[in-house]
Amino acid sequence: MNCDFLTDTPGKLYKLAGRQVRTEGTKIDLGVARVGGDEFVVMAGPCAIESEEQLLATARFVHSHGAKVLRGGAFKPRTSPFSFQGLEEEGLKLLRKARQETGIPVVTEVMDTRQVELVHEYADILQVGSRSMQNFPLLKEVGKCRKPVLFKRGMAASIDEYLLAAEYILNGGNEQVILCERGIRTFETSTRNTLDLNAIPMLKRLSHLPVLIDPSHGTGYSWMVPAMARAAVAVGADGLLVEVHYKPDEALCDGVQSLSLDMFADLMQDLSRIAPAVERYIDLPVSV
Amino acid sequence: MNCDFLTDTPGKLYKLAGRQVRTEGTKIDLGVARVGGDEFVVMAGPCAIESEEQLLATARFVHSHGAKVLRGGAFKPRTSPFSFQGLEEEGLKLLRKARQETGIPVVTEVMDTRQVELVHEYADILQVGSRSMQNFPLLKEVGKCRKPVLFKRGMAASIDEYLLAAEYILNGGNEQVILCERGIRTFETSTRNTLDLNAIPMLKRLSHLPVLIDPSHGTGYSWMVPAMARAAVAVGADGLLVEVHYKPDEALCDGVQSLSLDMFADLMQDLSRIAPAVERYIDLPVSV
Amino acid sequence: MNCDFLTDTPGKLYKLAGRQVRTEGTKIDLGVARVGGDEFVVMAGPCAIESEEQLLATARFVHSHGAKVLRGGAFKPRTSPFSFQGLEEEGLKLLRKARQETGIPVVTEVMDTRQVELVHEYADILQVGSRSMQNFPLLKEVGKCRKPVLFKRGMAASIDEYLLAAEYILNGGNEQVILCERGIRTFETSTRNTLDLNAIPMLKRLSHLPVLIDPSHGTGYSWMVPAMARAAVAVGADGLLVEVHYKPDEALCDGVQSLSLDMFADLMQDLSRIAPAVERYIDLPVSV
Amino acid sequence: MNCDFLTDTPGKLYKLAGRQVRTEGTKIDLGVARVGGDEFVVMAGPCAIESEEQLLATARFVHSHGAKVLRGGAFKPRTSPFSFQGLEEEGLKLLRKARQETGIPVVTEVMDTRQVELVHEYADILQVGSRSMQNFPLLKEVGKCRKPVLFKRGMAASIDEYLLAAEYILNGGNEQVILCERGIRTFETSTRNTLDLNAIPMLKRLSHLPVLIDPSHGTGYSWMVPAMARAAVAVGADGLLVEVHYKPDEALCDGVQSLSLDMFADLMQDLSRIAPAVERYIDLPVSV
Repeated sequence: MNCDFLTDTPGKLYKLAGRQVRTEGTKIDLGVARVGGDEFVVMAGPCAIESEEQLLATARFVHSHGAKVLRGGAFKPRTSPFSFQGLEEEGLKLLRKARQETGIPVVTEVMDTRQVELVHEYADILQVGSRSMQNFPLLKEVGKCRKPVLFKRGMAASIDEYLLAAEYILNGGNEQVILCERGIRTFETSTRNTLDLNAIPMLKRLSHLPVLIDPSHGTGYSWMVPAMARAAVAVGADGLLVEVHYKPDEALCDGVQSLSLDMFADLMQDLSRIAPAVERYIDLPVSV
Repeated sequence: MNCDFLTDTPGKLYKLAGRQVRTEGTKIDLGVARVGGDEFVVMAGPCAIESEEQLLATARFVHSHGAKVLRGGAFKPRTSPFSFQGLEEEGLKLLRKARQETGIPVVTEVMDTRQVELVHEYADILQVGSRSMQNFPLLKEVGKCRKPVLFKRGMAASIDEYLLAAEYILNGGNEQVILCERGIRTFETSTRNTLDLNAIPMLKRLSHLPVLIDPSHGTGYSWMVPAMARAAVAVGADGLLVEVHYKPDEALCDGVQSLSLDMFADLMQDLSRIAPAVERYIDLPVSV
Repeated sequence: MNCDFLTDTPGKLYKLAGRQVRTEGTKIDLGVARVGGDEFVVMAGPCAIESEEQLLATARFVHSHGAKVLRGGAFKPRTSPFSFQGLEEEGLKLLRKARQETGIPVVTEVMDTRQVELVHEYADILQVGSRSMQNFPLLKEVGKCRKPVLFKRGMAASIDEYLLAAEYILNGGNEQVILCERGIRTFETSTRNTLDLNAIPMLKRLSHLPVLIDPSHGTGYSWMVPAMARAAVAVGADGLLVEVHYKPDEALCDGVQSLSLDMFADLMQDLSRIAPAVERYIDLPVSV
Repeated sequence: MNCDFLTDTPGKLYKLAGRQVRTEGTKIDLGVARVGGDEFVVMAGPCAIESEEQLLATARFVHSHGAKVLRGGAFKPRTSPFSFQGLEEEGLKLLRKARQETGIPVVTEVMDTRQVELVHEYADILQVGSRSMQNFPLLKEVGKCRKPVLFKRGMAASIDEYLLAAEYILNGGNEQVILCERGIRTFETSTRNTLDLNAIPMLKRLSHLPVLIDPSHGTGYSWMVPAMARAAVAVGADGLLVEVHYKPDEALCDGVQSLSLDMFADLMQDLSRIAPAVERYIDLPVSV
């Protein structure tokens, strides 16, 4: 099943997601930026949308420091039913408001086939989270959409399962799939997950789809995020998904892994120094 | 957070699923049998429903050899979109037919919140599969049902996450949750998964819910199923979920892990010899 | 590479450890019992030898309740250099004393190639622990011995690596290798390790060597040991290695996973009820 | 147990390896370079020493392209006893020859307590391999040496176990311990191991010891090595251990993960471009 460019690879040809389909790599146009090209694209924002003040303050800051997409969860998959479950449609409305004010496109998670239409109405990019990676009815549903899908790897999914799951979306006719490694589950307990950077060159070799990295979930600690984000640039990822909160200590969800605004500003400076060494660039606003 | 009967356990009290809620253990009445009591209850049938002949032949055989529930998949979660996806509603109708003919209750998987009503109409027990263990909208939906839910552990879910996910179902008011260990993902590749029998005494200690074992997915090889099923009885499980196919070599799905009819008959004999040693019984038909 | 009896197995033929070498299975004669035959052989004793009183009291009790081998560590592999490292040769002398008094053979760990000669002098069975499974110089050294080796699986070793490592011992001319599954390392943290009972039928199919189970390390909790030990009998293991301490609360090492004397007595009764259902027996002293 | 600089870390204070012992970080002087300072130090060479021609050709090339240490295995820990086990003392003599000719210090593995003296005589740095990470007698023995120890993480060792094992060496009075992450064992099978780059910032925070990365074993594929090596620089590692073979296709061991000479030359150029972005440098020879 191998072809030349896959020599030495334990892989196989994926019918729709495979590199042989589009050898030069898929590029996804977001208007303000293109994912999969020379620009290293940063998507940033809070784990969960909590209030207008929180979302807007964060949105303004990350936008003015080089983020090209605002992330924020309205429907939250929480381990316990007794945890905060998100602001739901109210959160989506706040996302729309943030976009109107800043001009930045927004990405947010959809968990339920019945909500795809609703989320599609508000979001520029639909996120399918790691717990939904093999929610095949959901994948079929977002496959019918014509907006980009940020498709996160399951926390115990092999590369093979991941690419086959991506084929559910592609098979629906939606070609705008952005992969995202966000940490896998291993025996190591000192970090929340083990961010699998091996996956980047492997996914790049096997597939034509662009690949982001989420170091916030991948490590679980904000102090580790800058180091792993630098590694993400160097290893060849197409961008970053990162949690930023204007007051991490007061976050309703995942505060310990959220960057403060200042940490985010520093991070963007750091990354913009590394990108040229791997022939990428980060498009920082002039004023920064 | 520990209380007396949890001494030495690294656990915590689960609000709804915890042992403290019902110290004597939940028993779930299926009419023909009660899960969680002294009877060791066997649920058997094909991985996927393929045809009337296949389902009926298997149903008659397993019923006449001591199975109390017929399993069979109509909606199949398959790793690739190009694999057989199940007969869907047609499969549900065949299940109803099998129940009418044999009198045996049926369990089948539901994957999509939009299908819960449909599956609920045909099934006696709704199965939530391992890939859906953290599909929280689905859990909330089956939590509204008043039929038993066979709730499988995710392949990389910790015991803690598993019991917290069960609380989504219980929190909807559905108290009839049957847990099922089906193998976890580890580094070992000689078997499909690693059936985690440790989970049985641990779940029994932490929770009041009954627990089944699925040795078919847990090992991936039919020749391993009898040994692991014997262990399931000995370790204290409340029953078994096992794949049986009247022609394993021709199965559309998971044939290599499906017992033949003869193997199933032998297995029931085996198990009925072990059960009394742990103060359980298997209710074999007289003619067998 | 497969031959007939391995059909459906993902294995290969192991040159020395493979089932094809001795299809009826290796039996290892310990004088008082034979490992790999119809008897289910129990080896019991403290994790670490701490004192004459502790060792002798435990030895007398387990011997009089059906244990055929006394276990006890003199050289202890401890995670930190600041933990108790064992009584070393003094411990070996106590083992000899226990054997003289009770007539029971003894098994103890050797960790260093330079100690093989010393340990060989005192022990009836040499144990190679899980941390040493790929200590190849040590395996070569015990391969030169002509006493049985209790060879534990590494905590992250695949079945394939385990059997290839066993071939180091066999290749030295020592054919008396007893395998022992003792729990593998997985993402699950509620138990110390995940006892991999799948490994028993797999090892039995691929290899002619007898296989024990160590539920004490496999689970890390004494209250889980009886359930897993019952499963060990049912799944087809040839015996058990179990930690017993006359005063678990005062143990210098692994007290939380050690059975008390009373728990051990109850366990032997339990196991003797299950063994006949799988055509094995446990040889309990008449007086018990 | 936490102190200020460990805030937000799930760690503890390690008595000897902990960051609190030497907050500025340990620097290890190799004469030609210092590990743990601003220089990013590359150690390169073949997995196994096979012949004088092979070792010398590789040594000359890597030295002239910026490697500061020559690696090469004389005693090889091989999974099967029937694989090539290394040239042993003959290999050590070739290492000495390579050092005499090129002036480059050499690192080689020691596996057996009885060989420490011999290896110490020939090597500038003693390597303790991942299979020996918890070979405590060996750790005590190299702890008595006064040469640097390259101490690789076990493939299933937690960060906590790793640092506690390092304390065995430090406790012997040998303060020159260089840590090395080389990939951990996970469920993912597309790569040989999962290189755990999370470990670098975590080890740097918890410990004062310098940390290298081995992307050759970490991935198992030479084509992945450059990407992961770039990430190693960006993430903050102190250097690299990398396999280079003058004829990878003919290597007796691990050829598929060995860089060719040309690939190594390109890699050094790549890395020297990234290093300044993280305030490190690579000391390339002028002629390159």
